[in-house]
Amino acid sequence: LENKPQPIGVIGAGSFGTAIANLIARNAEVLLYARNPETVQRINNQQVNLDVQLSERITATNDIQAVAEQCTLLFGIVPSNNFREMMISISPYLRPYHIFVHGTKGLDITKFNFDELEKADLMRSHVHTMSEVVRQESSVVRVGCLSGPNLSAEILEGQPTATVVASKFKEVIKKSEKALNSEQFHVYGSFDLLGAELAGVFKNAYAIGSGILAGMGMGKNIQAEIIISKN
Amino acid sequence: LENKPQPIGVIGAGSFGTAIANLIARNAEVLLYARNPETVQRINNQQVNLDVQLSERITATNDIQAVAEQCTLLFGIVPSNNFREMMISISPYLRPYHIFVHGTKGLDITKFNFDELEKADLMRSHVHTMSEVVRQESSVVRVGCLSGPNLSAEILEGQPTATVVASKFKEVIKKSEKALNSEQFHVYGSFDLLGAELAGVFKNAYAIGSGILAGMGMGKNIQAEIIISKN
Repeated sequence: LENKPQPIGVIGAGSFGTAIANLIARNAEVLLYARNPETVQRINNQQVNLDVQLSERITATNDIQAVAEQCTLLFGIVPSNNFREMMISISPYLRPYHIFVHGTKGLDITKFNFDELEKADLMRSHVHTMSEVVRQESSVVRVGCLSGPNLSAEILEGQPTATVVASKFKEVIKKSEKALNSEQFHVYGSFDLLGAELAGVFKNAYAIGSGILAGMGMGKNIQAEIIISKN
Repeated sequence: LENKPQPIGVIGAGSFGTAIANLIARNAEVLLYARNPETVQRINNQQVNLDVQLSERITATNDIQAVAEQCTLLFGIVPSNNFREMMISISPYLRPYHIFVHGTKGLDITKFNFDELEKADLMRSHVHTMSEVVRQESSVVRVGCLSGPNLSAEILEGQPTATVVASKFKEVIKKSEKALNSEQFHVYGSFDLLGAELAGVFKNAYAIGSGILAGMGMGKNIQAEIIISKN
């Protein structure tokens, strides 16, 4: 029993968390944290979430302490506006030996009061990437992020793709690669953590703009042109 | 009669040539060269080409000499494998006062014998961009190129988009802008002619790769990933 390899923790059972859990399950046991007890029950009884068949190697739980205690390598896949709260809830159980990789394409500005925007400028010190939130709220040092062309629906369909795992720590990249890499999912490493996080955030301006244009009935030419015109 | 503004010449009545002619016709009279006499007749009788309604300001001809003599500003929109031949046919009528802007996303390697590839390496000196072909085959100095997200079908539908006109000469950029700019089509200028030409060529490797993946039933994730993996 002592030699049984550790499961890998995935926090968040939304569509991207579910997709990442299914990818990791190709290589290892997965402990998937979902807040909602009904979701946990359905996954453990039927191996189904969001109408997708889950690997037999995925076990769900809503015990955040158990995830931290059973897993050294954690993937946090929750929306940016829930991220700090999630970190606060898991933080008491995290230790400096944990590795925390997030897949959140957003920023945290919770420590700034937007009602006072006229009195005080929004500064870099008010804006936090998710890896910065992990550092602020826990004793974890080895942080990283996942960023790439990773539409969940396609991953869940079994379509192949790739991603970047960025971290200042080679160990974070290596362990994430070992967990995620498969014929379906190719992992590229990068040491530019901040760059990867910001790329994941700022591409959304283009994604939203492109979606607005498509919604207005505009074609692919002008959707491509919003990238030219920002240069 | 002396004060009548010159028409602008468009050489090539394929889908992109037709789209460019319709765009220019928003600003000026257009003389559109088509090789096929039946195409010329249909355009002049019905103002229709490729099932698209053409502006009343477009006149077709298959007299290449007339195009060179009546127009100072010429847009050459023919495939790369016909480009040199087209230049040879118009060259006797071109003068150093002509401005020649091409919209061809390809290269010319006609002066290299591929049967001798084992004996001689393909060198930069064998490979010509279209603006280089214009310079080689004519007395025209002021050359430029059009390059941008310009799917012809969308332009012909009236969808808005933008393009880059690149040239070493400000006059080429200014005159092309004046001819092409409208609410439907925004022209950006650039002095990097070679860069714009090569971008128009090399993006085709991605376009073909992406098309192959789509044809295999692959999704948007991996189509985006071919750009990452070449970096």
